[in-house]
Amino acid sequence: MTAAYDVTGIGNAIVDIIAQADDAFIVENDLVKGSMTLIDADRAETLYGKMGPAIEASGGSAGNTMAGIASFGGRGAYIGKVADDQLGAIFRHDIRAIGCTFDSAPLTGGAPTARSFIFVTPDAQRTMNTFLGACVELGPEDVDAAVIGASKVTYMEGYLYDKPRAKEAFVKAAQAAHAQGREVSLTLSDSFCVERHRDAFRGLVQGHVDILFGNEEEILSLYQTRSLDEAVAAVRGACKVAAITRSEKGALIVTADRTVEVAAEPILRLVDTTGAGDQYAAGFLYGYTQGYDLARCGRLGAIAAAEVIEHIGPRPQVKLAELARSRGA
Amino acid sequence: MTAAYDVTGIGNAIVDIIAQADDAFIVENDLVKGSMTLIDADRAETLYGKMGPAIEASGGSAGNTMAGIASFGGRGAYIGKVADDQLGAIFRHDIRAIGCTFDSAPLTGGAPTARSFIFVTPDAQRTMNTFLGACVELGPEDVDAAVIGASKVTYMEGYLYDKPRAKEAFVKAAQAAHAQGREVSLTLSDSFCVERHRDAFRGLVQGHVDILFGNEEEILSLYQTRSLDEAVAAVRGACKVAAITRSEKGALIVTADRTVEVAAEPILRLVDTTGAGDQYAAGFLYGYTQGYDLARCGRLGAIAAAEVIEHIGPRPQVKLAELARSRGA
Repeated sequence: MTAAYDVTGIGNAIVDIIAQADDAFIVENDLVKGSMTLIDADRAETLYGKMGPAIEASGGSAGNTMAGIASFGGRGAYIGKVADDQLGAIFRHDIRAIGCTFDSAPLTGGAPTARSFIFVTPDAQRTMNTFLGACVELGPEDVDAAVIGASKVTYMEGYLYDKPRAKEAFVKAAQAAHAQGREVSLTLSDSFCVERHRDAFRGLVQGHVDILFGNEEEILSLYQTRSLDEAVAAVRGACKVAAITRSEKGALIVTADRTVEVAAEPILRLVDTTGAGDQYAAGFLYGYTQGYDLARCGRLGAIAAAEVIEHIGPRPQVKLAELARSRGA
Repeated sequence: MTAAYDVTGIGNAIVDIIAQADDAFIVENDLVKGSMTLIDADRAETLYGKMGPAIEASGGSAGNTMAGIASFGGRGAYIGKVADDQLGAIFRHDIRAIGCTFDSAPLTGGAPTARSFIFVTPDAQRTMNTFLGACVELGPEDVDAAVIGASKVTYMEGYLYDKPRAKEAFVKAAQAAHAQGREVSLTLSDSFCVERHRDAFRGLVQGHVDILFGNEEEILSLYQTRSLDEAVAAVRGACKVAAITRSEKGALIVTADRTVEVAAEPILRLVDTTGAGDQYAAGFLYGYTQGYDLARCGRLGAIAAAEVIEHIGPRPQVKLAELARSRGA
């Protein structure tokens, strides 16, 4: 069955506000290093007041992934909720400018566009504090079943489970995809997000998700084990493909009958890990929807992740299609 | 006479929207490569629609310079007009976060905060297209004579001459500075800006400006000559100090009785020249207001300029005080 889109991504549409910070700042402000914490408007104002000079870049986990897929030359659509404001215009511009379809109606007269205050420490780790703003209004009415049906894969963030209406949107999209013979992909997003929604995520992975993304910590949390072997055994067969990323140790791609190990790409300098997981998913899903073998899908994921951690900001700064070609992938 | 501030900067308060572009894009869209062109709201919308994915960063020539001075540890204030909107909040946050006083009242109910669409070509050259928005409302009422009197130097952009009320603000500030025994500094901003205001700028430099900044092209345009020697002779004595920047050829610092030549700093990689002149002025003025000799002022300018052209964005990404210390300057 032909498809207009390789992937449709659904997620929280967020503009990132990125600054450098030292570890003392993380401690003093009770931030959860390496994680994503949801904050309200008051906390956002307080935290921004303490933040150093920043730069802004469109972000959001699934949005970053879609930008990466488009950078590989994939055809994508994105569903997410911005407000009718300047940050929303920036988000809309950036995702469309890379070639991704984005037609979700903006929220008018409500909360502003979501922003994530991201502190990058000298070890290149990122600590995210997200004010969801307009994202909380994302709901099932924003999911166009025709778009889902026109996409080989529908890719969704675990973060959507943090708000009830976004969760409804998730469920509607998954059902619409399977009803139309398409596949569903989920990223576990964050180990704290897995803790918040462990039972729901286990239920999803078992039978409702075809392609699962998670890092080692998230997969271990999902199955409440300290053993990667146990987690691999648990996820094997639960979904069609699980890609488990392990930073500089590379990734394991697990299917019903085998495990493919893919090395990490060498990097020149580690600057900012924001978006690394998102870009891994971009490379993998681009390869997957082109019908490449799993090792090649994993290599493309590794190349995209390596590119994004070499600079500030969560989206690629070079054309990933050309980068992959130059590396024989 | 003691001073609360080393420098007060007055300029167009702008948020930069920065994307990569190739030379074909510059030609197809009739952009003036390497220059700053003023555009209206319609042209801004059209150009943004054609622009690739971008990142946002606070900019504005004098704003960049003040951020640089603060990064050296200098005490600064900034006067400029943003709107009461999201981009204005970003500008305000960033200049305050670096330690600069910024108390100009935002514009309400009028034009939005200014933005400059900056296209960076593979040769690291930047081509700027600026929609001035709220900046056109900057006027003499925004100039607080007490702040000017509390500043060793008042530094202003030539760009202010592009709008009549901003020009009035410039003149008021210059008069207030001199009336209170303080010095006035001007950057010529852009060779096209010099062409637009040549007679006015010559009149200013002759007797009203103490410290002049300009690159070679701007100084040549100011005196309508092709000979750098002729331009140096013309500017010598017209103002107390003129710093003429010549990119990789370094800079000439010209006073009534001598010319100090300062080499450019070596750079690792040339990425984006946006803000190079602004940061040169930052280093120079920081040194000048600390009472350093002219060669050291020039070296600090060269170090700051070299830092900013090694990355995307117009403001320093490291603490310039530490960078200068590490280089023995």
